[in-house]
Amino acid sequence: MPGSGYMFDKFKDECGVFGIFGHPEAANMNYLGLYALQHRGQEGCGISAADGSSIRTHVGGGLVADVFKDNKIFNRLPGQAAIGHVRYSTAGGDSLKNCQPITVNYSRGSIAVAHNGNLVNAQEVRFELEKSGSIFSTTADTEVIVHLLARSQADALADRMAEALRAVRGAYSLVFLTETRMVAVRDPSGFRPLVLGKVDGAYVVASETCALDLIEAEYIREVEPGEMIVFDKDGMTSMHPFEEQKISQCVFELIYFARPDSTVFSQQVYEKRKDFGRKLAREHAVEADIVIPVPDSGVPAAIGYAEESGIPFQMGLIRNHYIGRTFIEPQQSIRHFGVKIKLNAIRDVFAGKRVVVVDDSVVRGTTSRKIIKMIRNAGAKEVHMRVSAPPTSYPCYYGIDTPTRKELIASSHSIDEICKYITADTLGYLSIDGMRRVVGVEDGTCGNFCDACFNGDYPVKFPRLTDDDQLGLF
Amino acid sequence: MPGSGYMFDKFKDECGVFGIFGHPEAANMNYLGLYALQHRGQEGCGISAADGSSIRTHVGGGLVADVFKDNKIFNRLPGQAAIGHVRYSTAGGDSLKNCQPITVNYSRGSIAVAHNGNLVNAQEVRFELEKSGSIFSTTADTEVIVHLLARSQADALADRMAEALRAVRGAYSLVFLTETRMVAVRDPSGFRPLVLGKVDGAYVVASETCALDLIEAEYIREVEPGEMIVFDKDGMTSMHPFEEQKISQCVFELIYFARPDSTVFSQQVYEKRKDFGRKLAREHAVEADIVIPVPDSGVPAAIGYAEESGIPFQMGLIRNHYIGRTFIEPQQSIRHFGVKIKLNAIRDVFAGKRVVVVDDSVVRGTTSRKIIKMIRNAGAKEVHMRVSAPPTSYPCYYGIDTPTRKELIASSHSIDEICKYITADTLGYLSIDGMRRVVGVEDGTCGNFCDACFNGDYPVKFPRLTDDDQLGLF
Amino acid sequence: MPGSGYMFDKFKDECGVFGIFGHPEAANMNYLGLYALQHRGQEGCGISAADGSSIRTHVGGGLVADVFKDNKIFNRLPGQAAIGHVRYSTAGGDSLKNCQPITVNYSRGSIAVAHNGNLVNAQEVRFELEKSGSIFSTTADTEVIVHLLARSQADALADRMAEALRAVRGAYSLVFLTETRMVAVRDPSGFRPLVLGKVDGAYVVASETCALDLIEAEYIREVEPGEMIVFDKDGMTSMHPFEEQKISQCVFELIYFARPDSTVFSQQVYEKRKDFGRKLAREHAVEADIVIPVPDSGVPAAIGYAEESGIPFQMGLIRNHYIGRTFIEPQQSIRHFGVKIKLNAIRDVFAGKRVVVVDDSVVRGTTSRKIIKMIRNAGAKEVHMRVSAPPTSYPCYYGIDTPTRKELIASSHSIDEICKYITADTLGYLSIDGMRRVVGVEDGTCGNFCDACFNGDYPVKFPRLTDDDQLGLF
Amino acid sequence: MPGSGYMFDKFKDECGVFGIFGHPEAANMNYLGLYALQHRGQEGCGISAADGSSIRTHVGGGLVADVFKDNKIFNRLPGQAAIGHVRYSTAGGDSLKNCQPITVNYSRGSIAVAHNGNLVNAQEVRFELEKSGSIFSTTADTEVIVHLLARSQADALADRMAEALRAVRGAYSLVFLTETRMVAVRDPSGFRPLVLGKVDGAYVVASETCALDLIEAEYIREVEPGEMIVFDKDGMTSMHPFEEQKISQCVFELIYFARPDSTVFSQQVYEKRKDFGRKLAREHAVEADIVIPVPDSGVPAAIGYAEESGIPFQMGLIRNHYIGRTFIEPQQSIRHFGVKIKLNAIRDVFAGKRVVVVDDSVVRGTTSRKIIKMIRNAGAKEVHMRVSAPPTSYPCYYGIDTPTRKELIASSHSIDEICKYITADTLGYLSIDGMRRVVGVEDGTCGNFCDACFNGDYPVKFPRLTDDDQLGLF
Repeated sequence: MPGSGYMFDKFKDECGVFGIFGHPEAANMNYLGLYALQHRGQEGCGISAADGSSIRTHVGGGLVADVFKDNKIFNRLPGQAAIGHVRYSTAGGDSLKNCQPITVNYSRGSIAVAHNGNLVNAQEVRFELEKSGSIFSTTADTEVIVHLLARSQADALADRMAEALRAVRGAYSLVFLTETRMVAVRDPSGFRPLVLGKVDGAYVVASETCALDLIEAEYIREVEPGEMIVFDKDGMTSMHPFEEQKISQCVFELIYFARPDSTVFSQQVYEKRKDFGRKLAREHAVEADIVIPVPDSGVPAAIGYAEESGIPFQMGLIRNHYIGRTFIEPQQSIRHFGVKIKLNAIRDVFAGKRVVVVDDSVVRGTTSRKIIKMIRNAGAKEVHMRVSAPPTSYPCYYGIDTPTRKELIASSHSIDEICKYITADTLGYLSIDGMRRVVGVEDGTCGNFCDACFNGDYPVKFPRLTDDDQLGLF
Repeated sequence: MPGSGYMFDKFKDECGVFGIFGHPEAANMNYLGLYALQHRGQEGCGISAADGSSIRTHVGGGLVADVFKDNKIFNRLPGQAAIGHVRYSTAGGDSLKNCQPITVNYSRGSIAVAHNGNLVNAQEVRFELEKSGSIFSTTADTEVIVHLLARSQADALADRMAEALRAVRGAYSLVFLTETRMVAVRDPSGFRPLVLGKVDGAYVVASETCALDLIEAEYIREVEPGEMIVFDKDGMTSMHPFEEQKISQCVFELIYFARPDSTVFSQQVYEKRKDFGRKLAREHAVEADIVIPVPDSGVPAAIGYAEESGIPFQMGLIRNHYIGRTFIEPQQSIRHFGVKIKLNAIRDVFAGKRVVVVDDSVVRGTTSRKIIKMIRNAGAKEVHMRVSAPPTSYPCYYGIDTPTRKELIASSHSIDEICKYITADTLGYLSIDGMRRVVGVEDGTCGNFCDACFNGDYPVKFPRLTDDDQLGLF
Repeated sequence: MPGSGYMFDKFKDECGVFGIFGHPEAANMNYLGLYALQHRGQEGCGISAADGSSIRTHVGGGLVADVFKDNKIFNRLPGQAAIGHVRYSTAGGDSLKNCQPITVNYSRGSIAVAHNGNLVNAQEVRFELEKSGSIFSTTADTEVIVHLLARSQADALADRMAEALRAVRGAYSLVFLTETRMVAVRDPSGFRPLVLGKVDGAYVVASETCALDLIEAEYIREVEPGEMIVFDKDGMTSMHPFEEQKISQCVFELIYFARPDSTVFSQQVYEKRKDFGRKLAREHAVEADIVIPVPDSGVPAAIGYAEESGIPFQMGLIRNHYIGRTFIEPQQSIRHFGVKIKLNAIRDVFAGKRVVVVDDSVVRGTTSRKIIKMIRNAGAKEVHMRVSAPPTSYPCYYGIDTPTRKELIASSHSIDEICKYITADTLGYLSIDGMRRVVGVEDGTCGNFCDACFNGDYPVKFPRLTDDDQLGLF
Repeated sequence: MPGSGYMFDKFKDECGVFGIFGHPEAANMNYLGLYALQHRGQEGCGISAADGSSIRTHVGGGLVADVFKDNKIFNRLPGQAAIGHVRYSTAGGDSLKNCQPITVNYSRGSIAVAHNGNLVNAQEVRFELEKSGSIFSTTADTEVIVHLLARSQADALADRMAEALRAVRGAYSLVFLTETRMVAVRDPSGFRPLVLGKVDGAYVVASETCALDLIEAEYIREVEPGEMIVFDKDGMTSMHPFEEQKISQCVFELIYFARPDSTVFSQQVYEKRKDFGRKLAREHAVEADIVIPVPDSGVPAAIGYAEESGIPFQMGLIRNHYIGRTFIEPQQSIRHFGVKIKLNAIRDVFAGKRVVVVDDSVVRGTTSRKIIKMIRNAGAKEVHMRVSAPPTSYPCYYGIDTPTRKELIASSHSIDEICKYITADTLGYLSIDGMRRVVGVEDGTCGNFCDACFNGDYPVKFPRLTDDDQLGLF
């Protein structure tokens, strides 16, 4: 029941980062950490390890368990420090180039970097860099950061990094690795999560706490928005080299992205999701016989809805766990099997029932429509769709690969229209205010969160914004 | 939330069979059917298709989506009839030999067969056949059936099959394919399930109804214990060629094997599992704060337990969906990651709570022990283990690959001893009587079911039975 | 320069067999032996090993080095005796079924068999066996032998084998393996080669001596036509259980199939090929400037031709060693690259020259035509084609997969017509008499050889013979 | 009989480049070109194609036929211009990074480059570039060129390239590709070959003419030392932007690297190799019965030796064509199979004979020693080793990956010592003077050639030179 977009690819997952410093089996522990962060990116992954004198990197397309299936790979990644990355990736022969960590050589030696987030001024900065002779190997905005770093004349690594990062704007939770040090940085807005932990005397940073749990690391605290932490043989040094800014943590991590067993932004995800469901039940009560989730990501909100409403919770939709990459449909068939190969409705659960279906988002509406059809075919008398978040109407520019506005049904349709399209009897979304109160903001503002995908109030400006456009995400 | 043994390999899954007759894309529909039956066998699969004059077969090791990932394979499987099989398989270079359908040539032409179950007198019959000159290519008991068929002098196909099957004893849900016909047979005891459906004018047989659902076939009825159905161009012909016997349907299908969205033995699996949980709550009530399932197979029983007891249901254990075949643990680590890579406990759910953990079985006890440790580490104050079935004390000889008696903790330990071993505060199993009542047997007998794995009352005798031995299963 | 059909697939290679008894690393030595016999079959291979109590087999599609690339396979093939096979194979999902050794169980235990040759009455015998209840898993004629063996009531293994083999007719060089013994048999006609050797006290049998050379085994002698040798813990026992017949060794082994460094039928292949070339030079002398071979199989005959004629030998055609399985031609190109990707002509060698091109056979004529075109484009003034064998006009029924008569250009065209088709200035084939004299037969008969592919005098009768038909070969 | 180092890995092959401009199927033709150049690099390859507005690249590890085995790849490489590269590669996870063409983006757009050769001042230049902020993604010296290009402020592409290349020293045959143009450059010393051709109106450049032959392109001329040719929609423009230098073409291309059917440096390779053999026969005559080559690279020289000496040429050593990447030797065996799996000696050819063995080089001496042992075991009475080049005593810094001096037997041993080590009766190397005369230099100098590997006279200076060191080659 991880908060995975995998099942319906509602949103392409962003990325996940992990780093460990001071552990005798750094690369292998990193592998475990990436394993736990797999829901943040299924298309590619990589690990860089440093042994005091050099950095070695292994990247590949596919799941962590496949890219690192041969344990001889770990012999080629010696050292007590390692950083890693999981990502979604573009297709084609060049795709490996876009896998991270990116590892380069420059005048001070080697450096590897893993990035979760998206820079909004990457194109501008890149244009300036190219004008003065820089060459780029990838299309990733992350490469801009490395160039800025190489250009800096500052003596200390931390100063060079601060100088480089002051030139960029947007979302970044970064982990760097040099031959002898690891550095973790979170942008001043704190868009993406990054947590700090410790295991066996080694420091660990990770996108979510579920990665700490797997390796039995102790959770210490979040890396703070605007904080840079340098790890070296003398321990860790924290600094805040950036100008302070309004904090804008991505509320969608709590709604959908993060795994329900994680703590991000110091909030426990499962409990928040249940609370979204409870609040939703209060905002959109309905007479019904059963509450069922769209598995797996809708489960906690559905439990919350059921608890609050007193309507029994049932697992009426069964998920097929053996979905492969390819699925071969009959050629001549008039049917499209689509959702059916992923979910099946249990007839006896639905027959004659008034059903509340709880999901965490409606993107294009097509999947919801099919699920409701399946539930009605199973005999449901009424189907009430409840969404544990406000309507997603605006694309994200800070690291989540949302569809363009054109594809987001809520950006151009009223709730009534959506309800009709998905053929629900009623449709209720959590209100923006309700959502904010659940995450602890009571004053009518977005507080320390970014909820631009629901209202278009983008906290960090970017060069252009057209309805159909969307920045590439890396 | 399919009833999959995959997660902890509690029991090796048995097998699943599927057949379709009279469909223009028989092989492709068969692929879809096997997809839905994947939880019954993940190690190998195959499809045979007949086009009126010959039979072609494709088998392979691995998941259905992998073995049939290239859609050119379907071009090599033309015809309007097809049968298929999913199986677990033994390791080694010869394993493909044991994949089904088995396809052979004999004096009347070609025949393919897919088998779910286990013959208890296969060794005896095989010995007799070998004495008179038969050779065997596989170690599968299914091959015995084909030899008997080839030896029969009866003219009609159905007569030859009946003659062959009268010589064997045990569990068999079989689907045969000849160049022009399909035959489905279920043994007189009805150990393993087999259902009949129809789609687009084509007949379908499958181990479970979830396979009918995926291809949008209408469920007609079960193939009855002792029934043989011949499908040919003139439609279907039902016959009962065997002597009547006590019906002994495998109760474990309802407890663990079948997918919760299936109907087997005319009972809806999800509802029965909830009822096991309700009955368990009445038999083993306890003061507690939350009820949590061991996902995924324990979910329906936990919901039932929660409903009956009034204790809130929570998804406190989160499952990692990206488990690969290989998992590389750190070499020098003192920890064993085991269960942690599959499950994680949510601290905020458990902290300070009295917890009821519901699972559907305890096999060796080692996994339960680790899960309870994980729950305690997450802060639980009390952990009460509840099992929605009686203690599994006897191996199965009718098609389920249970561990030997030595490995079954319940065969040699008292409930108190097990409770202590798994470190639970209390442990409660569903009673045999309670289980029987849930499946509709009120008279103190096992009714139309086999529950020998709980009490050792084997309904069909077999040649030898030692404590540590176990018949090979196919 | 092995006598490989690989380059132009003139003839599909037949098969190769290997066996070793009494060696601590039997399977690994067998692997080496198959490596040396790879030119006899590139599509599939396998090894069975016996450790005194059971037989284990590993087979796969592809080259020996690929099928056995993981050396853990050898751990799964323990024992001091092993037999192996290389083969060409049919396409499709079932192809593994046709890989050898075939391993089966019967009343006396297990037996594995590897076969080089072709039985001419396999269909008849199979029909009889099926009538009495036998089932067949493969389309291979080899399976007939195993059935006959299983049916025999004789007590001694050798007697059962003799009884079984007396029922079949045709070509067979066979190696059997039981749990404790190995048996080598060569049919009474001696169609296919089989040699006996010894290394480190272990006995070895192989299709050609080049397999002995690689493992540094000493060549002892041929297994004789009609001989059966049983190897067990007490050594080897030779017997001649069959009625004596005219010996009919395949002359094509000397012309084309065997590796030039092998000794088969007690004749050294390289020397015989040079002698074919010398004889050809005497029969078809021509004024010319250079003699060039079609590499690699034409090299020895070309050297012989050059020596006899006094015309200088040159390697004017260069072979590309990196030919892969697939070759992707431009879609829109009007050219067909065909032969060019395999061979290139050196302009400076050919410019202005009168050229004798020596090849060992002309099958369809298309390849010769392209080669001559290439040579003319390189500037040759005259091109004289010389073939170091008589015209191939009749299909083989004894183990070589020749094209059908329709495809054999020599079966329907005069030498003048062929010469014209391939655009040579002159064309000369070695005479049948000349060929016979080279292999030591001076009396105008075919002696101890079969040369039916040149004259249609088939020494062992078979059921049917139509122009376009051809028996399947296994 | 290509001049391949593959068989004994005497020298690691250098690299091969290919480019085509103005062809509707540029990428596919490039594939064919690389196919023909495969002997110059077997470890990795790649193709970049330009369609007027962007460049797409596909690279991979392995043979051309494997990296491009799926013809869908060509759909992803549209455009009328393409460049390609074959290379040997270092091991490890990062190896793909070092595959070429290298494709980057800079201020003027995209550029791809394929390089054969080695820059001797790459480290120095790289150090300077890094000091001013450049970052490097690979360890390849080729990347230095791209940085210099990006730094240049010149307006015209050709001027930027000239400016960049004037900063580097060493060996480079380069092909560049932009969105709309292709550029071919050969360093002023002309170390490595590069030829120009034309097919169907499209221009072609390639390392050797054998690549022109395969695609049936007409050979026009060499790209001259110091020449830069720009291909665009208006045709080709030649320029000579570099200061003139002594020409130093690599004589080893003629001796060993180039395919015998190629013309490089305007000399026909096969004929030159025969002439080396003839000259060798005059310099080191010996009484003998047969001349045999070490196949395949020694064949032309052996033919030349035989012609000149009048001693008969024989193919006494037979090569196994099915050598795979892996070869699994028996663990317990006292034998090392080594050379035997590649070559076998024909007993009847050698028995009782005085043998001249002709090879083109002796590197470490170990292979020669094994071959001579094999020949003696086959019965040879005397073995006279003749090498068709002078002793290789100095490493190459211009693009050939020779072993270090320590490993070159001739750098530390006299000819007598080598003769003794390899156990030959006599040993004769071609003299430096003899070699120079064959390639047309009669005045006692090295003429337009570099023969530094034989005498240490390096024509282009480099920063450091120690006995054991060797620059990395790319």
